[in-house]
Amino acid sequence: MAEEVKLFKTWSSPFPLRVAWALQLKGIQYESVLEDLSNKSNLLLQYNPVYKKVPVLLHNGRPISESLIILEYVDETWKQYSLLPRDPYARAMARFWAKFGDDKVLPSIYAAFKSEGKEQEAALAEASEHLQKLEEELKGKKFFGGDNIGYLDIALGWLANLGVFEEVSSLRVLDVERFPLLCAWLKEFSDAPVIKDCWPPRDMLIAKFIARHQARHAKSSST
Amino acid sequence: MAEEVKLFKTWSSPFPLRVAWALQLKGIQYESVLEDLSNKSNLLLQYNPVYKKVPVLLHNGRPISESLIILEYVDETWKQYSLLPRDPYARAMARFWAKFGDDKVLPSIYAAFKSEGKEQEAALAEASEHLQKLEEELKGKKFFGGDNIGYLDIALGWLANLGVFEEVSSLRVLDVERFPLLCAWLKEFSDAPVIKDCWPPRDMLIAKFIARHQARHAKSSST
Repeated sequence: MAEEVKLFKTWSSPFPLRVAWALQLKGIQYESVLEDLSNKSNLLLQYNPVYKKVPVLLHNGRPISESLIILEYVDETWKQYSLLPRDPYARAMARFWAKFGDDKVLPSIYAAFKSEGKEQEAALAEASEHLQKLEEELKGKKFFGGDNIGYLDIALGWLANLGVFEEVSSLRVLDVERFPLLCAWLKEFSDAPVIKDCWPPRDMLIAKFIARHQARHAKSSST
Repeated sequence: MAEEVKLFKTWSSPFPLRVAWALQLKGIQYESVLEDLSNKSNLLLQYNPVYKKVPVLLHNGRPISESLIILEYVDETWKQYSLLPRDPYARAMARFWAKFGDDKVLPSIYAAFKSEGKEQEAALAEASEHLQKLEEELKGKKFFGGDNIGYLDIALGWLANLGVFEEVSSLRVLDVERFPLLCAWLKEFSDAPVIKDCWPPRDMLIAKFIARHQARHAKSSST
């Protein structure tokens, strides 16, 4: 019997992309279910009643949510192409930096993009400090996972979206002179066919971020 | 050669307790290193330079931080007495509710204890809504892990501290009529010898929370 594997996602959100990448890397066929977060489907609310967010992975009728937890499930369910390393300490480090990415790096970069003036400078300084730690983690490695794309690469894959934010806002976060390893990783990661294939169209992302940027600017000018 | 297992903790923090419980359940001998968070040791700063927090588990010279990540490490390193279930879906659910405990339940209860009036009522309502979800998870089970204490019981074990908060603040969060399963679980969990042995002295905890409660009250009265 064929397995039922469905991924509830939006066309642009980076978190479901983690799951899509993981499934692609493992060669698992799945069906994408596109959600509109301004008008969530009953199925999404049923499958993720706690957070009401994407991604949700539905596997043979059973839903799993929270992208990093889904990655662990995918890795434990389909053994081919391991995402996490085998060694318990290396696994702990991959989980640690993935959590750090979500808890520290992402909020500081988001704060830098949505603020202005001194507040933006402070957020940018904080983001740079966090990124420096990731830069150090890449020393001597092609990917965070070593020679191949793994769990931590996937968890930090949203950084590859930064170029779009930078283009729209003319803010420079990932400077190649300051973060040469991260920039090299980002290019290597983004160019891998299995990663590239899942990426939303760049022109649509730019249009979306321009609209959001203008709306924010209009709001801050009117108050 | 004997293994080096050291746990950096404070006398009262609930997060290192998770690790202590896990090590006890697995029968692993370890050395406790008591930290004073107002005067952190150089070792703590060296072993957890990112968060500078307890717990840190030092295993044969290698540090791991973040309590839920340490639990996974402990479970993968010492195989006796599994903390997480074997089935990938059950593992995903345990991880999901542990994260929910940290992301939603804990902040809402903390907000209820540190606020007053309408703000407190709102925080309490939110906390109750979250606790209701945990109550439902306990249906038909003695522990969250089933017949035995597991990963999720340990992750939610801080709830057993609520009685002390309630005694100090006279705020009632875990009402037995509303949350009969959670209250029964809490008693069963707290009374298990391996759990009880690690618990900080109740009178010291009460003294600490009274001091904190009074300091907060004095501060809010003076502004």
